[in-house]
Order: sequence, then structure tokens, then C-alpha cells
Amino acid sequence: MARARVYVTLKKSVFDPQGKTIHDALLSLGYSGVTDVRQGKFFEVELDGLPAEKARATAEEIARKVLSNPVIESFRVEVEG
Amino acid sequence: MARARVYVTLKKSVFDPQGKTIHDALLSLGYSGVTDVRQGKFFEVELDGLPAEKARATAEEIARKVLSNPVIESFRVEVEG
Repeated sequence: MARARVYVTLKKSVFDPQGKTIHDALLSLGYSGVTDVRQGKFFEVELDGLPAEKARATAEEIARKVLSNPVIESFRVEVEG
Repeated sequence: MARARVYVTLKKSVFDPQGKTIHDALLSLGYSGVTDVRQGKFFEVELDGLPAEKARATAEEIARKVLSNPVIESFRVEVEG
């Protein structure tokens, strides 16, 4: 059983209104040291019956084709087990 | 400048309809090796003008009070820089 973690973030050049809203909220709560907030998504994908190398390839394919929008997002995949 | 990464996930006992929907979609696309999908959120928080120890304490406070709902979610904080 392999577990893949896929982290999806908006590319740096893409405006992140959720992150901006959280940043504004933190400033209004008094966290003046916060200079930027970006929000992303992550996914834990359990893969069964695949050898480690195949699990990574499958996880990267799923991340590219299903979990992220390559026009505005980038992703990172970690596989364990 | 410290960068904190906060990962927020639904607790294991909480049903995750987004993850279930993605899981069903992956199965229908032919990824039969996928046995579970859980979706979470993550946040990159830039903290300025704080020593490392204070940055971690601040990031954990923000994670606990603002970024997560402790009733249904758990979180993990990583700080670098």
C-alpha cells in the first residue's frame, strides 16, 4: 500500500483572492508580522497493489490530469510506502 | 523572513465528500489501484520580523485559531527560514 500526497498551489503569477482575504483577516486580528498568505489544496491518495515506482508514476499522472489545472496551478507529489 | 506551511485535514472519523467524489471519478477513469482519497487544504504564511521560535508559535496559533476548525479538522505546521 503506497500513500501519495499531492500538493496543488496557484502559480506565483496568479492572484490568490482566498489567500488575500485570509491575510487581511490576520492583519485585522493583530498578526502584523504576516506579510503574505497563499492557499492551496492537498490530496492524500492511497494506491494499492502497485510497486513503488509505478505508484509514483500513477500519482503524478493523476495529479497532472485530474487534481490540478496546469494553466494556473503547479503541483508537487510525495510518495511513501 | 520565516515561511510557515500549515496543512489542515479532516479528522479520520469525519466523512470527506470531496475526497469520495474524486475517488469515484478516478475509479471511473480506470485508476483501479486507488483505494482512498482525502482532500485537505494548505496555507503558506510568510512571517516577517520574528525569530524562528516566535514564528513557529505564531504560526501554530494562527493555524489553531483561524485556519482550522478543531471540531472536525486537525493540522500540522512546518516552519522554515
